[in-house]
Amino acid sequence: MKKNLLVAQSGGPTAAINATLAGVIRKAAECEQIDRVYGACYGIQGVLGENLVDLTQKVDTPEKIEILRRTPAAALGSCRFKLKDIREDDSQYQQIVDVLHKYNIGYFIYIGGNDSMDTVAKLSDYCEAHGVTDIKVIGGPKTIDNDLCGIDHCPGFGSAAKYIATVFAELEREITVYEAKNVIIVEMMGRNAGWLTAAAALAEGQNGSVPYLIYLEEAPFSMEQFVRDVKARLEENNAVLVAVSEGAHDEKGQFICEQGQGARELDVFGHNKLSGTGKVLEEVVKEQIGCKVRSIELNLLQRCASHIMSKTDIEESGKLGENAVALAVEGQSGKMSTLTRVSDTPYEIVYSGVDITEVANLEKKIPAHWINEERNGVTEEMITYLKPLVQGEISSIYEDGIPKYLLLK
Amino acid sequence: MKKNLLVAQSGGPTAAINATLAGVIRKAAECEQIDRVYGACYGIQGVLGENLVDLTQKVDTPEKIEILRRTPAAALGSCRFKLKDIREDDSQYQQIVDVLHKYNIGYFIYIGGNDSMDTVAKLSDYCEAHGVTDIKVIGGPKTIDNDLCGIDHCPGFGSAAKYIATVFAELEREITVYEAKNVIIVEMMGRNAGWLTAAAALAEGQNGSVPYLIYLEEAPFSMEQFVRDVKARLEENNAVLVAVSEGAHDEKGQFICEQGQGARELDVFGHNKLSGTGKVLEEVVKEQIGCKVRSIELNLLQRCASHIMSKTDIEESGKLGENAVALAVEGQSGKMSTLTRVSDTPYEIVYSGVDITEVANLEKKIPAHWINEERNGVTEEMITYLKPLVQGEISSIYEDGIPKYLLLK
Repeated sequence: MKKNLLVAQSGGPTAAINATLAGVIRKAAECEQIDRVYGACYGIQGVLGENLVDLTQKVDTPEKIEILRRTPAAALGSCRFKLKDIREDDSQYQQIVDVLHKYNIGYFIYIGGNDSMDTVAKLSDYCEAHGVTDIKVIGGPKTIDNDLCGIDHCPGFGSAAKYIATVFAELEREITVYEAKNVIIVEMMGRNAGWLTAAAALAEGQNGSVPYLIYLEEAPFSMEQFVRDVKARLEENNAVLVAVSEGAHDEKGQFICEQGQGARELDVFGHNKLSGTGKVLEEVVKEQIGCKVRSIELNLLQRCASHIMSKTDIEESGKLGENAVALAVEGQSGKMSTLTRVSDTPYEIVYSGVDITEVANLEKKIPAHWINEERNGVTEEMITYLKPLVQGEISSIYEDGIPKYLLLK
Repeated sequence: MKKNLLVAQSGGPTAAINATLAGVIRKAAECEQIDRVYGACYGIQGVLGENLVDLTQKVDTPEKIEILRRTPAAALGSCRFKLKDIREDDSQYQQIVDVLHKYNIGYFIYIGGNDSMDTVAKLSDYCEAHGVTDIKVIGGPKTIDNDLCGIDHCPGFGSAAKYIATVFAELEREITVYEAKNVIIVEMMGRNAGWLTAAAALAEGQNGSVPYLIYLEEAPFSMEQFVRDVKARLEENNAVLVAVSEGAHDEKGQFICEQGQGARELDVFGHNKLSGTGKVLEEVVKEQIGCKVRSIELNLLQRCASHIMSKTDIEESGKLGENAVALAVEGQSGKMSTLTRVSDTPYEIVYSGVDITEVANLEKKIPAHWINEERNGVTEEMITYLKPLVQGEISSIYEDGIPKYLLLK
């Protein structure tokens, strides 16, 4: 008997999460074991609340699939919602199983990051423990942070990395326009891992010789060294580009964005006001070096910039979605669809499934030997790792000059 | 006898200023009156300092022309440099004429904004007053701010407008991902004119129904009305997108970014610290509405984003460069290469020259009747004006995943 498939998205938006969704829909349409594809709106909350849409009906042409895979941010909506501790109260899990049974769902694909893989782990455990053998639960990876374990690199990261490298290339043109000494500081997302910040290195040396300084949270940040680094670069160059993670912190673990905080007064509304990491560094350069300086926070732009995406990333994201469906249909459960790198040059990867316990609630940091000795840049190994991920360009589809997206909820 | 042509760039960078430069080089190569094309590095300062490069040699293939027109920010470098008051000291003007004569230059094209057109005006006046008839001085327009008079719209503006509309389209996907009430505030450049901020309106209603609130500096900003506007929108919607100009100010002319300043203490370095306009509004929403809110400053990204440019803008920018050369070769001087809109639908423009006195030191503001009565949005006339300017897409050329630019200095 044919079963239906349910797919949902969770965690922070990326430019590629809908490419994975598109892959799921495309592959499901090919599988004779699958009847209809449903989407749950706003992640697992939408499953609990039976907030479902019929994707077989809503995404019924190759054109719509193509628009969907180039639409940024979770088209089904997302949530940041942790299921209750299963040892204390398993009622939510039973509720989910009941909803899946009600809609004759045999395959549930949950696309997300660390937390979402925790949901996949618990739900598949629950099914196994309670003899629910007719529901297969598979995770689809996603995060711009690139910090998932059990996978070579994360869908969405390649596009964010390409966006960041492109922005640095552009800022290098911008910073060399005037002759005066000039520092630009760019702050990237990534509270716990510096992968996005490292991506700036891809642009260095590609169009000129502006030196880059790259500070990752995997190496403790020293304000004294930062000032020394900038001064040293400015002695030989008019311009310096600085890449820093929002999560940069000193040896004691104090975030840079909290430094100087004690000396600051409350703002006009009585808030204890935090500057961003880049803003703090901008102040330090102004004060201790005194040259022209500007800080830029890439903010949300870096995770939804579907006007410049990595073709490699979008294609892989789609195939990871297809692979997730294939795993489920094969009868696997409690796995995450994954890819393994077989070779750097030529770049070659293979798709498979990884046990969800190797992924859930874990974080992948940058290896220490991929950071240079001065802790202000990356090594060649990092470039070798990153380079294949940003190959090729793809963007949203434009209509009448403005991007055209597919809306599902 | 053949003469040489000198071209220079001035003012703030744009994504299109090199397209105009490429147009100048392309057209000059076709003109039998012109021998070589020189470029002055760092604007008029490079003329005074004889810091010239041979562009006929450096940009010697169609491929290089094509890379140049897709390279952001002034490839020849720029300056913010006002020549001395000609009534007090005209020695700099004579020095410029001497350099031009030394290099057998008969045509000087200066690409820039308001201030640069002032330089064109003074230099051509000087030539006329001193009987220098063998040098023709023509301005090439450029500014993302779109505030030049004597031209329908400015080269560089269309690409910045397209970037901004695209960012708003993407943020609309981003802001609807979660179910919670959510406000995103985006701050655009434009100290004196709100054209860039108005461009956000191009995305509204194109992909969903998130309401936009658009505050332009041409209409006085009221904090009370802002709070009322946001609250009213949030009653009927979960999400609101706010576009605001850095130069937004109240009825007394006080900038929003200065408000609350009196109540603030100095920062850790003793600076009197200014938040950005968006940041101030973010604080107000937090305090007076209390929902999720985030502010984004587009910063330098909006003026050098050559990864998403308006094809219309880049083509027109090139033709304005070609037209500048044509005007000079015809024997005109003290003119700015310009375009006039003949029709909105179908969009039709014609190229000509405008007397530089109609441009220099003037500013074009948004007409009052293009702003809605509530002062929080634009009218259909504004959309009709903007729409043709963002048609078509073009981007930098990528090599090995990273943008490839042409460097000239």
